[in-house]
Amino acid sequence: MQRDVDVIVVGAGLSGLTAARAVLRAGFEPLVLEASDRVGGRILTEEPLPGVFLELGAQWIGDTHHRMAALAEELGIGLYPQFEEGETSYEFAGEVLRGAAFHRKYDDDLAAVDRVLRELDRMAASVSVAEPWAAPDAEEWDRISVGQWYDAQGLSPLGRELLDICTVGILAVPTVEVSLLGLLVNVVTCGVTADLLSESEGGAQTRRFVGGTALIPQRLAELLGDRVELDSPVLSIEHSADSVTVTCRGGLVARGRQVVVALAPTLAGRIMYDPPLPAKRDQLTQRMPQASAHKMFAVYDEPFWRADGLNAQLISSVGPARMSNDSCMPEETGGPGIILGFLEGESARIEGRWPAAQRQEAFRDELARHFGPRAGRPELIVEGGWADKEWTRGCYNANPGPCGWIHFGDALATPVGPIKWAATETALVWSGYMEGAVDAGERAAREVLADLS
Amino acid sequence: MQRDVDVIVVGAGLSGLTAARAVLRAGFEPLVLEASDRVGGRILTEEPLPGVFLELGAQWIGDTHHRMAALAEELGIGLYPQFEEGETSYEFAGEVLRGAAFHRKYDDDLAAVDRVLRELDRMAASVSVAEPWAAPDAEEWDRISVGQWYDAQGLSPLGRELLDICTVGILAVPTVEVSLLGLLVNVVTCGVTADLLSESEGGAQTRRFVGGTALIPQRLAELLGDRVELDSPVLSIEHSADSVTVTCRGGLVARGRQVVVALAPTLAGRIMYDPPLPAKRDQLTQRMPQASAHKMFAVYDEPFWRADGLNAQLISSVGPARMSNDSCMPEETGGPGIILGFLEGESARIEGRWPAAQRQEAFRDELARHFGPRAGRPELIVEGGWADKEWTRGCYNANPGPCGWIHFGDALATPVGPIKWAATETALVWSGYMEGAVDAGERAAREVLADLS
Repeated sequence: MQRDVDVIVVGAGLSGLTAARAVLRAGFEPLVLEASDRVGGRILTEEPLPGVFLELGAQWIGDTHHRMAALAEELGIGLYPQFEEGETSYEFAGEVLRGAAFHRKYDDDLAAVDRVLRELDRMAASVSVAEPWAAPDAEEWDRISVGQWYDAQGLSPLGRELLDICTVGILAVPTVEVSLLGLLVNVVTCGVTADLLSESEGGAQTRRFVGGTALIPQRLAELLGDRVELDSPVLSIEHSADSVTVTCRGGLVARGRQVVVALAPTLAGRIMYDPPLPAKRDQLTQRMPQASAHKMFAVYDEPFWRADGLNAQLISSVGPARMSNDSCMPEETGGPGIILGFLEGESARIEGRWPAAQRQEAFRDELARHFGPRAGRPELIVEGGWADKEWTRGCYNANPGPCGWIHFGDALATPVGPIKWAATETALVWSGYMEGAVDAGERAAREVLADLS
Repeated sequence: MQRDVDVIVVGAGLSGLTAARAVLRAGFEPLVLEASDRVGGRILTEEPLPGVFLELGAQWIGDTHHRMAALAEELGIGLYPQFEEGETSYEFAGEVLRGAAFHRKYDDDLAAVDRVLRELDRMAASVSVAEPWAAPDAEEWDRISVGQWYDAQGLSPLGRELLDICTVGILAVPTVEVSLLGLLVNVVTCGVTADLLSESEGGAQTRRFVGGTALIPQRLAELLGDRVELDSPVLSIEHSADSVTVTCRGGLVARGRQVVVALAPTLAGRIMYDPPLPAKRDQLTQRMPQASAHKMFAVYDEPFWRADGLNAQLISSVGPARMSNDSCMPEETGGPGIILGFLEGESARIEGRWPAAQRQEAFRDELARHFGPRAGRPELIVEGGWADKEWTRGCYNANPGPCGWIHFGDALATPVGPIKWAATETALVWSGYMEGAVDAGERAAREVLADLS
């Protein structure tokens, strides 16, 4: 089997599909090669009951995710607001407290955490996402782990732990695995820490897609028609200045003039390139592992917590879920009550590897502690991690390890001849989010089109 | 092209060749698939002048490397001692001092470094190489970087820097990239810190191979004959309980009952496995990057430094080489004077990427500062790094990043059905060295043979 096109795109995640669409719109012929049997990459919607959509992968967009909002509108997909009225439940120091009581009791601790966040914002102001290694303090900040820096901020044990949980909620790895500079890059691509951490205005998690996030990649794929080949894992990419030959397992060979590799960096690094990639690029992708995330959905007959003045959010020092939130369908639709628990970083690696029965029992117990006995009796639990998914191998995204940005960072998005790099990790805005995937896909397409014309 | 054998070995480095030889000796038919056009992997000898062998890769064995000594004897390859008589030259605090003077001036600083090394030995006594994650303090030690722990030991700036240079001489990455537990694993596989750091008795670098290290893999390959296929990079491994099919770029397909993957972990992680590997194994190989090393040889008409009472060793806070030593041919052979400078970790990434002319000029200047003006005028400089070598992608070896051992370590050498893992990284003794490569190859062969019988 052979296909001859203008531009080959590796990966039918949001970034690859966006790039392919831009190429097609410019009058060139793209072909998207997808390893798995579906499009969407880190977007994965399950529908265990009719009309009940659970997002095992990307779930929200934020108020400033204009590319995603425009894409949804264009594709005819509705948005609905994240439910967040009510108190959050906290489990620290051996007790479960509702938000108001928690804030009263730990006012000083929380004020200190706020000061640390403002300090992060202050430092982030000197970091450019396009060139993090050029920040005045980059050499120092890329050698300190986030956890190490947090340890030095004089927080109380509770404040320190709370900050850690919230940070792991973004990075999805233990805070000793990412450098302070790496965290600041995340802050900058998203605006300020408040945008990164909050579900409120300006934050990353304010709206969802009616009918499931997966509609986005599915409808993009429909626009591309037979220009998307599923079940086509790419083994090798041969390239010269103006041609590429991409070979898939199963025998499909695609030839084109340019290629967009729209895979997470570690996966992009597995392809056999001929000629081989520059040393710096290869050593970078060796150092940018996919994070560790696992989601657990508990489904009830109704969102009973709302009448209780709770928002289904928990933050817990115990686990197995360290955070949770309300993941119901739109209010006007009604439908079941759904609480989503997050196992991220260490939780995904420890409790995420327990036998399902043990993990689900611990999750039910935890939900009961926070939201009452009824929460301990869900009708259904649906869960899933990403490390075992062959073509993703971890979520939500990837950050380089210590010294990664200063020693290898400029290889992340720099094209290699006809090879352009997409995926949310290469984005300059909202890297790690769907918004970043679109930004990166559009930027890679611009690079391709510049070389084609 | 198709080959049917009992055991396929991926990688003709020392570990793979050792495994294949053990399989053959046990009466089974092996086939070694090597990606590059030569055997040896991280062993690479160049002969720029007749009889002058420069080791761009593995160079020494130590007194306790009994497997390697036996292998050399069996293959008829002579050993000769590393020259080390005379003083080392130190460059710190803006001045160059010979050993005796340096020790006099910085006696207290060096005593403090010794205390830290003894403390490492004390901690290492609680670490088992087979199960580093089970050490009583593993959870704490895998979350602290080596550099962070060193910072807390109350050393003087000079002591701290000296210790860093010596440690980077082993790890070949900045000390913030490896956890304290990771360093302790290195200490334990080699005995004690003195074994790891010293070129004297018990140390890792006391003897060399007459005629070049490459004779070892070359003669092993001769024994295997046409059971070694060069230019056969492996794209995929299909496996069931008792069969494997290995497909190479270029079309060679090898079928067998078992496979030994004798590649550094990050390279092993690039192969497409069907069925896919367990989540933990995949996330481990995402987190075990190849280190950064670059060697520079300066060749003179004779080893003039010896008459001066110098051993050609330097330890420098300036660089570009942070360490060096005497790399001459055997004394009875005579021949030119050769000094080897090491660029490891950050030096390999910064100065190692400079244009060759700039780097070589800086190296000549450095040698002149230490060993006199004559050292600044070598007849020849031969140099090479490893990050740009497609089938190695970094040297000397790989250590997992923070939390790597505690969260993923037990996937490093655990077989996956008919797939057994070799390479020096999986060794229980002298991991990172040739001795470890042989240990790992022999262990993988035993696992294979147990499953074949």
